[in-house]
Amino acid sequence: MIGLEQIKEIARPTPSRIVLLVIDGLGGLPHPETGKTELESAKTPNLDRLASEGICGMIDPIGPGITPGSAPGHLALFGYDPLKFTVGRGILEALGIDFELKAGDVAARGNFCTIDESGVITDRRAGRLSTQICSELCRLLDRMNIDGVAIFVSPVREHRFVAVFRGEGLLSALHDSDPQQEGLPPRDVVAHSPQAERAASIANKFISQARATLANRHPANMVMLRGFAHHPDLPKMSEVFSLKPAAIAHYPMYRGLAKLVGMEVLPTGATIEEEIFTLAEHYDAYDFFFLHVKEADSAGEDGDFTQKVGVIDKVDMALPQLLHLAPEVIMVTADHSTPAVLKGHSWHPVPFLLHSKWCRPDGVVEFSERACISGALGRFAATDVMSLALANALKLKKFGA
Amino acid sequence: MIGLEQIKEIARPTPSRIVLLVIDGLGGLPHPETGKTELESAKTPNLDRLASEGICGMIDPIGPGITPGSAPGHLALFGYDPLKFTVGRGILEALGIDFELKAGDVAARGNFCTIDESGVITDRRAGRLSTQICSELCRLLDRMNIDGVAIFVSPVREHRFVAVFRGEGLLSALHDSDPQQEGLPPRDVVAHSPQAERAASIANKFISQARATLANRHPANMVMLRGFAHHPDLPKMSEVFSLKPAAIAHYPMYRGLAKLVGMEVLPTGATIEEEIFTLAEHYDAYDFFFLHVKEADSAGEDGDFTQKVGVIDKVDMALPQLLHLAPEVIMVTADHSTPAVLKGHSWHPVPFLLHSKWCRPDGVVEFSERACISGALGRFAATDVMSLALANALKLKKFGA
Repeated sequence: MIGLEQIKEIARPTPSRIVLLVIDGLGGLPHPETGKTELESAKTPNLDRLASEGICGMIDPIGPGITPGSAPGHLALFGYDPLKFTVGRGILEALGIDFELKAGDVAARGNFCTIDESGVITDRRAGRLSTQICSELCRLLDRMNIDGVAIFVSPVREHRFVAVFRGEGLLSALHDSDPQQEGLPPRDVVAHSPQAERAASIANKFISQARATLANRHPANMVMLRGFAHHPDLPKMSEVFSLKPAAIAHYPMYRGLAKLVGMEVLPTGATIEEEIFTLAEHYDAYDFFFLHVKEADSAGEDGDFTQKVGVIDKVDMALPQLLHLAPEVIMVTADHSTPAVLKGHSWHPVPFLLHSKWCRPDGVVEFSERACISGALGRFAATDVMSLALANALKLKKFGA
Repeated sequence: MIGLEQIKEIARPTPSRIVLLVIDGLGGLPHPETGKTELESAKTPNLDRLASEGICGMIDPIGPGITPGSAPGHLALFGYDPLKFTVGRGILEALGIDFELKAGDVAARGNFCTIDESGVITDRRAGRLSTQICSELCRLLDRMNIDGVAIFVSPVREHRFVAVFRGEGLLSALHDSDPQQEGLPPRDVVAHSPQAERAASIANKFISQARATLANRHPANMVMLRGFAHHPDLPKMSEVFSLKPAAIAHYPMYRGLAKLVGMEVLPTGATIEEEIFTLAEHYDAYDFFFLHVKEADSAGEDGDFTQKVGVIDKVDMALPQLLHLAPEVIMVTADHSTPAVLKGHSWHPVPFLLHSKWCRPDGVVEFSERACISGALGRFAATDVMSLALANALKLKKFGA
C-alpha cells in the first residue's frame, strides 16, 4: 500500500471538491423474511442513479473478518492505516464529549464509585448517580495541578467522567486502577514501562486527592481510572493530502475524530437535510467535506431493521440538494456494517460508490451490498478510498518518472 | 505479497515460454459519444479469443488512485515493487538515449543555458539550440575525469543532455543546480547528506570546468544539472525468476528499463509485425519475452482516440503470427491507462489477460475494461503478474512443505 509520505509527495491543491458521505453502519444482512438487507429494502432512486453513473465496490475497513470500532472505521476512510494509527479508549471518550484535546494529552475514562471504611469497593457505579450530580462532582475535581501537570475532569453521563492529564512527557502506558469487580480495593495505577512512572505517580496523586475531596460525598466517595490513552497526534489531512477539509457531523465523537486528522468542524443540525444545508453554506471555503449520518448505526445497534431502512430512505430523499451543488467527486459508504439482525457492528464489507466525471463507469445500476460485489472497484481496503477520491478530483500527480 | 527472495526459492528453469505483450497506455475511458473505451471500440477478434480461452482481470500498477510513471508501471509488471525500487529522473533520461549505465553510476539531466557577465541566467534553454549543436558541445564536455570520477556527457535533444558520473562511492542525494527560473545565478550543487559531499564537490567541479570550456560558446555558455539519481542496481530476472529474458522494444527508455532488470535487449524494427518477427527469430534462445508497443500511449497522450483505436486494431491483426509460435503463456496488458479523453497517464486499473493451457478459464469472452472486471483474476496488483506467469508456465515449485 502506498504510504501517507508518498501520497504527500504527489498531492496537489486544486479547486475541485470531494464529498465523503458516511452512512454509519450502512452495511447490513438480509431480513429473515424478505431476504433483503436494509439497503436493499430502502427506496434509493438517487443512490441508484449515482451507482449507475459511477463506480462501485466493497470495502474492508480493516481487513476481512475484522469488526471495526468507530475510530478505526473512520480513520481508514480518512486514509490512515487503522492498524498503525490507534485511538485509545480514554481519547475516544474525551472526543465524545467535545473535549478540546491537544497533542501530548493523556486521557482516561473515569468512574465515581463507592468504597467502605477499609477502602474496598462496594459499588463500582456509585449507585449510578445522576449526570447532574456527576457534573457537580467533576467541578470539585477539575483543574488540579499536580507536579506541573494540569488535570481536567469532565462529566460524561451518570457515574462516568473523563480525566485529561496535560503536561510535558506524559506516557499512557498505564494499567487501570479499576479492578473491574467489587469486593476489592481500587488498584494503584502501575506503569508498563519505566518511562511511564511519572504519569503513574501523577495519576495516583490525583486519585488520592480526589478521594480526600470526595470523603463526604458517599456514595460517590472514590474514583477509578481505566483506558489510559495518548493523543495520537496524527498527520493533518491538509499536510498529507493538500486538502482544506471540513467535517459536518452531529455526534461529538465523529467531530472529535475529524479534528484528530485536522478537519475544520462546522456547526450543524441533527438531520441530513441540515447537514447538507451546512455543506452548501460553506461550499466555497473547503474542498473536502465529510458528512456523517449516525442514525443508521443506532438503528442497527437497536436491532431495528425498519428504522434503519427509514434512515437510508431519508438520506436518499435529501440527496438532490447535495447533487445540485455538483461536487466533482461524491462518495457514499460507511465506516463498518451494523446489521440489525446482529444488533452491533460487524465484519461484513461495506458497499462503496464513487461518482465523478472521470471514474470509468461499470455495469452496476443499484447501490446495494449484492450489486457492489460486481463493481469495477472490486473488494478493496478502505485506506485506498482517499487516493481514489483525490485521483478522481485530479488532485494527484503522477507517481515516479 | 510474496517477496522476490521467496519467489527465488521456488522458481525453476523449464523449457516453457512466457510472452508479456505490453500495449503501453492501453486502458482508456469511454468516448463521450459512443460510451465505449478505445479498447472497446477496436476490432480485436484475436484478443477476444485469447480472453475466451484464458483468464482476465484488472491490475493496479501501483495502487488504487495512483497514476504511474512509465518506470514504476513497467517495474511492477516485471515483478518489482515500484514503491520499493525507484528509478530517478536522471537515470530514466540516460536510459532514454540508450546510454549503457553501470551499477554505481549517478546520472543527472542537464541543460545548456545562457548566463550574462555577472553569472545570472538570461535563458534557461540557451535559445533552444539545435540538437546538432548540442551534440557538438557535449563532445567538448564528454569524458572529463575529476578526482578519479569519469563523467560522460551525451546529447538528448535541443538544449538537453545527460551527465553520468562513474566512480567509487558516489551518492545521488544532491540538490539541483538549476534554480528553475531566469534572473538568478545557477546554484551550487549541495549534498543532502554528509556522505554525498564528494559527489557534490565533483558535480560542482564539472560545472565549473564546463563553464570555462563554454566561455566563448554564447548562447550556450553554461550548464545546469537536475534530477540526480542513482543506478537502482535491481536484482536480475535471471536470478530471481530463473528465466532467460529478452526485451523487444523500439523505444530506448523501455529497452533501458528492461536492461535494469537484466533482460537481453534484441534489435528490432518499429512495428508490432517486426517485433513479432524478432521474437520468432530468437524464439529458441530465451524463455521470457517482453514485447512493447509504444504507440497506444503516444496516441492517448495526444488525445487522439481514433489513432489509439487504430494501434489496438493493428496489434490484434499481428497476433496470429505470435500465436502460431504457441508460447505456453501469453499475457496482454499495459503499464498504465492513458485515456485519450484525459490526454495523459491515469490511475485507472488496466485490463489484463493471461492465456495458458493451465489457466482455469472464466466466463469473459471479450478483452475490454468492462469485461475484465468480471474476470477470474479480479482486481489485483501488477506485481503479482510475474508469479501468475511463472505458475502457468509450470516454473514455480510448491511453497512450503
